[in-house]
Amino acid sequence: MNTAKSYYAVIFTSKLKSNEGYSAMAKQMETLAKTQEGFLGIDSARNDLGITVSYWKSLEVIAKWKANSSHLTAQNKGKDLWYSWYKVRVCKVEREYNFDSLP
Amino acid sequence: MNTAKSYYAVIFTSKLKSNEGYSAMAKQMETLAKTQEGFLGIDSARNDLGITVSYWKSLEVIAKWKANSSHLTAQNKGKDLWYSWYKVRVCKVEREYNFDSLP
Repeated sequence: MNTAKSYYAVIFTSKLKSNEGYSAMAKQMETLAKTQEGFLGIDSARNDLGITVSYWKSLEVIAKWKANSSHLTAQNKGKDLWYSWYKVRVCKVEREYNFDSLP
Repeated sequence: MNTAKSYYAVIFTSKLKSNEGYSAMAKQMETLAKTQEGFLGIDSARNDLGITVSYWKSLEVIAKWKANSSHLTAQNKGKDLWYSWYKVRVCKVEREYNFDSLP
């Protein structure tokens, strides 16, 4: 990712009430997200709490992805079937740095 | 958390090369972070990839936490012993919303 240009992170934290059919839908949504304009990357981990962070070029492309019709269907199913709770935070990445150990 | 006031998220993604002694240190750092001025919350999950997101009142308190002496020792140990890779992104939370299912 280019650090010279600003970009955005969507932090999605969630707890599941059921995981029946959840991982198939989650995979499907991840695959679809990757095809969206302005998509930059996605990271996920889940223990009791799930955290998914997706990265995007602008607030506009985040709004488009939120309104994507297949994604809307998944969001509604998520509220009905899978999530007991979730929180979404839309954030502007202000600074970043990383570490890589040498082999 | 008060959505009227802006706040910051530090997204820490990492991969481990060893976890010997790691979880004890991670717990110790989480406990210490919670005592810091301007600390708002922390969420963690790890599968292959680990994601920890901590929330803070300002960039100033994030800089203070980064420079905390016990935390600096942990950061150095992390680079030497535990992390094969990590990335830190400091972000401004611009918008948030949540969902709670009724019982």
